[in-house]
Amino acid sequence: MSDPKIKMNLSCPMPQLDFDVITLGHGSGGTLTQKLLDSGVFTVLSNPFLDQRHDGAMFTIPGRIAFSSDSYVISPIFFPGGNIGELAINGTVNDLAMCGAIPKYLSLSFIIEEGLTMVEFWEIINSIKSACDSAGVLVVTGDTKVVERGKGDKIFINTSGIGEVHSQANISTSRIIPGDRVIVSNQIATHGMSIMSVRKGLEFESTMKSDTRPLNHVVKKLIERFGEDVHFLRDPTRGGVASVLNEIATDSKLGIDIFQKDIPIDDAVAGACEMLGLDSLYVANEGVFIAIVDERVADEVVSLLREQDETTEAATIGNVTAAHARQVILTSSIGGRRVVNRLTGEQLPRIC
Amino acid sequence: MSDPKIKMNLSCPMPQLDFDVITLGHGSGGTLTQKLLDSGVFTVLSNPFLDQRHDGAMFTIPGRIAFSSDSYVISPIFFPGGNIGELAINGTVNDLAMCGAIPKYLSLSFIIEEGLTMVEFWEIINSIKSACDSAGVLVVTGDTKVVERGKGDKIFINTSGIGEVHSQANISTSRIIPGDRVIVSNQIATHGMSIMSVRKGLEFESTMKSDTRPLNHVVKKLIERFGEDVHFLRDPTRGGVASVLNEIATDSKLGIDIFQKDIPIDDAVAGACEMLGLDSLYVANEGVFIAIVDERVADEVVSLLREQDETTEAATIGNVTAAHARQVILTSSIGGRRVVNRLTGEQLPRIC
Repeated sequence: MSDPKIKMNLSCPMPQLDFDVITLGHGSGGTLTQKLLDSGVFTVLSNPFLDQRHDGAMFTIPGRIAFSSDSYVISPIFFPGGNIGELAINGTVNDLAMCGAIPKYLSLSFIIEEGLTMVEFWEIINSIKSACDSAGVLVVTGDTKVVERGKGDKIFINTSGIGEVHSQANISTSRIIPGDRVIVSNQIATHGMSIMSVRKGLEFESTMKSDTRPLNHVVKKLIERFGEDVHFLRDPTRGGVASVLNEIATDSKLGIDIFQKDIPIDDAVAGACEMLGLDSLYVANEGVFIAIVDERVADEVVSLLREQDETTEAATIGNVTAAHARQVILTSSIGGRRVVNRLTGEQLPRIC
Repeated sequence: MSDPKIKMNLSCPMPQLDFDVITLGHGSGGTLTQKLLDSGVFTVLSNPFLDQRHDGAMFTIPGRIAFSSDSYVISPIFFPGGNIGELAINGTVNDLAMCGAIPKYLSLSFIIEEGLTMVEFWEIINSIKSACDSAGVLVVTGDTKVVERGKGDKIFINTSGIGEVHSQANISTSRIIPGDRVIVSNQIATHGMSIMSVRKGLEFESTMKSDTRPLNHVVKKLIERFGEDVHFLRDPTRGGVASVLNEIATDSKLGIDIFQKDIPIDDAVAGACEMLGLDSLYVANEGVFIAIVDERVADEVVSLLREQDETTEAATIGNVTAAHARQVILTSSIGGRRVVNRLTGEQLPRIC
């Protein structure tokens, strides 16, 4: 055990096993792989699709399908507010939600470095289970590989997901028009700064926790109420709000104006950013999305979001403009204007 | 460049780039990530779905869907007969084919260790492109992460895939009955031994090459011709033929008899197995599948397979029996019988 505290905080009691640590043999595809999967993945995540244990799962999706995939390499794998397991579920659930889809089925693939303890793996699997339950999705297929010590970093997880696109959704950069409002669903930079605080061993006045959470339920409400008036959705994870807005400006060939004073951020997070010399606009988020909506419904969208637990701090932070095409311009709290470029280097490696 | 030969054998000329090596910044989600993707993934793999550059791809699949996912961690990443890129495409294409599905759309996620050269990455992307073309599939979504030196091993690839289940296919262990014939589609152990030969620096009389290849076209022909008489399909990758047959015996609650003399294997591969003390039944395969078919059609299945380029050496190697439930029994060339167990340890780590 690298961290004895994890054992104490196990969310579910672990069954008795005849091994404590995952070894190369657990990735062989033979008896040990079976044992590893039987002792965790298959029991905890059991459902009629996964129980088939075939190479692939089979089902039908009547409408349009959304398909997304992400690999998670976050370090450390346990962090304030979560671990790599729930992050991997929520991340892909949210990518599907950003397509206007109702997430349904996920694949789950592990690349484990030999030496990962079964206690750590068990805790991750159980977090995956609760994240799946919260989002209302099933893990239906997967894969487990093990690499030698020093050829990985504890555990990497890939999740791919399939969702059914909501019949009223029509999400595309091509639908963005001048006048649209830019809404951020909650306080920004929380995830990134919570990871940074652990990595740097910093202690702040209040403990910052990652905001990893599923956003599919709130997005569903948004689309059911506002339909095609929701023009575009994207979650600003790696690269933060600045990178996503730049992508939107590039792809839509329009400009974006945002206003510093309107951007919601927790005081402790803002303080930590300042202390470490980081611009919060570039810090990674997990449980936050950006919505580009028709100006007529912007206020109602914000009201609806503020009524939901996941998005209590939602705010309109700017608007789309035909001026300064492909550029994002920030008006600072004291009225100065500056171009917000994309992130050029690596601000916070392995944040997701 | 770790291996200058790779440069000379580039399958497509690489564009001029202002960087030779992939760094942590290329995984930031910012400008450098964009640059990396623009210089390879997006240009080489371009298609209307991927060109959207959204977090997910959208499409429809009218019938039943098959969904599969695998992470590829093979070492070395370049090996005789292929590289990790085409392996990652063929592997997931084949998993879908084993569900009786026509593979359609793939996701492609990279976990790159900083220091991978652009020449290596370029060659991998181009192999991915040709493998996609051969199989008739499109990469529609993906992800790129970069980890620090010593926290990965050059490159890991996850592919997840979606296929449409053939209307005449009905593949399930529940359909296996006593009397069914066990067919292997080609010579076994070729992939595993070709990787071993590079790793161990061995030179054999003939150069062994991995048999990585897409199997979806031949499986489609099989299902179109024999429909529900094809009871079960599985590709014996990690753990080899022995592990897959054991899984089938366990899941179907039936016994399996196989006959050594009928199992097709290349002489050089058999010799290499003997030299290294490896049992070829446990050695990984890539371009091979096992079909469990109704006894009435077994001979015709073998004939059809032998007419296809991918499966010229197909053979019936045994049969399903109500005797010795859950056990696989091999009759040796000289008539002795022994139980073939699952692989217990790790025979050949990181073979796929």
